[in-house]
Amino acid sequence: MNSPGLELLSEHACFGGVQRFYRHPSREIGLPMRFSVYLPPQATSGKTCAALFCLAGLTCTEETFMIKAGAQQYASRAGLVLVAPDTSPRGANIPGESDEWDFGAGAGFYLDAAQEPWARHYRMESYVTRELPDIVAGLVALDHARIGVTGHSMGGHGALVLALRHPGLFRSVSAFAPIAAASRVPWGRKAFSRYLGGNESNWLQYDASALIQAQNTAPYPDGILVDQGLGDKFLQEQLQPELLEAACAASGQPLTLRRHAGYDHGYYFISTFIEDHIRHHAERLSPGSQSR
Amino acid sequence: MNSPGLELLSEHACFGGVQRFYRHPSREIGLPMRFSVYLPPQATSGKTCAALFCLAGLTCTEETFMIKAGAQQYASRAGLVLVAPDTSPRGANIPGESDEWDFGAGAGFYLDAAQEPWARHYRMESYVTRELPDIVAGLVALDHARIGVTGHSMGGHGALVLALRHPGLFRSVSAFAPIAAASRVPWGRKAFSRYLGGNESNWLQYDASALIQAQNTAPYPDGILVDQGLGDKFLQEQLQPELLEAACAASGQPLTLRRHAGYDHGYYFISTFIEDHIRHHAERLSPGSQSR
Repeated sequence: MNSPGLELLSEHACFGGVQRFYRHPSREIGLPMRFSVYLPPQATSGKTCAALFCLAGLTCTEETFMIKAGAQQYASRAGLVLVAPDTSPRGANIPGESDEWDFGAGAGFYLDAAQEPWARHYRMESYVTRELPDIVAGLVALDHARIGVTGHSMGGHGALVLALRHPGLFRSVSAFAPIAAASRVPWGRKAFSRYLGGNESNWLQYDASALIQAQNTAPYPDGILVDQGLGDKFLQEQLQPELLEAACAASGQPLTLRRHAGYDHGYYFISTFIEDHIRHHAERLSPGSQSR
Repeated sequence: MNSPGLELLSEHACFGGVQRFYRHPSREIGLPMRFSVYLPPQATSGKTCAALFCLAGLTCTEETFMIKAGAQQYASRAGLVLVAPDTSPRGANIPGESDEWDFGAGAGFYLDAAQEPWARHYRMESYVTRELPDIVAGLVALDHARIGVTGHSMGGHGALVLALRHPGLFRSVSAFAPIAAASRVPWGRKAFSRYLGGNESNWLQYDASALIQAQNTAPYPDGILVDQGLGDKFLQEQLQPELLEAACAASGQPLTLRRHAGYDHGYYFISTFIEDHIRHHAERLSPGSQSR
């Protein structure tokens, strides 16, 4: 059953399935939100499917991943539903909300803000984990036990953090050039100080490397896949995948971290390796795969 | 040797090759022009390659095809250089140039204008056929005998028309949702009346179906590939592939016209079928293929 107020904005046939864009009044955000869904042919013909949530980075929208990543062809073959939310609330009308490209609108960081004036609407964690799965399940026969999450940059941070904070929701996780330890780098520190407040110990709850470091057992024993370009201008200052690598080693979490010479931070990099990510998730989300 | 004034704006590793964006002072246009090139790994390692010129549609730029079509992965495998020019001169400062989305800037229609005030700068045919091939050949070991052309909508019109007017330059041709008979539909009639003047007999020189109809022998005996979505809102009023089909039948030009139920006019349609187009060109542009 469709969610109340859900509005189909556009749909486009694509690789035998359909690419759709929706708007709806969000319960968790308290504002209209947009998201996009790619339904593979298996989904449009009514078969129960697995889904991969795809979280985009700073300044992006629900369109970015679907337009630029080239994921639909592989999702079509694998029978995987793709879901891409927007990257923040829009139109909250908080002073300064749109003044900076790396904070506020377009930069929700996939967390629930604790500080005013952000706490009212900036609740992307609850939106992605508590609201969006049910809305998608109203559109397609979705197997709630077979949902994965991936993302890029801020969305790679989001994928890792949400997977670690909600292991019962997500069965597989991967990331492209994630902000691997957000509490320790400028993008994350700026966002966390305003969204979460000055107590830095609270920030660790949204720091992927700190969350893994704190685990006693590997939360994703089937492994995490991360791709990182070595020509990425944000690598040293903002991303720091070596901290994720060290945390995974310390906690016994299997990690495949691939470093690619020459590749930068953009979607030409993502499109080159998206096939491997779709395969990573499809294998772990197949009906016959081991549940944790 | 690089063209004088050629400026590399950005480059991005992509599927083992590199996606580049350039700006240069154009001799034919008389203004700075931008174009993009995808170099497959074979080209970056110095091997002589075939090239496919990719012409975008109304409102698009040299970025559109490279960002949205998902062609690089197939070009990488086939060893095919991709070249995408902008869709018109920019900054000619002609009154009204940017007032309409289907005429002027972003709507050069791949012709040489004969009427003032357009004739000075709006010379996209000469730019694409007489200038750009040599500039690309300065960047990569290009086999001038192995160049193909494809395009979308206005760019599909451009691909067909330029291939028919310059069969010695282009060895293979395909199109997505082309304006198949530009002199007979509103987009084309508006553009031709202003770029070419009131004498409609001159318009036939830039009408793909009329050009084929006028041939005694098939200019492309190895066949033309055209894909058309049946959910395309421009199909009946602006595109009219049935006129191309009739002209090809009359002149003996082999045409594979594929009509796809449900697909619309956009890049989700193009991305679904781009693999077939790259294969169409790669087969006809391979060193061992029959020359016409």
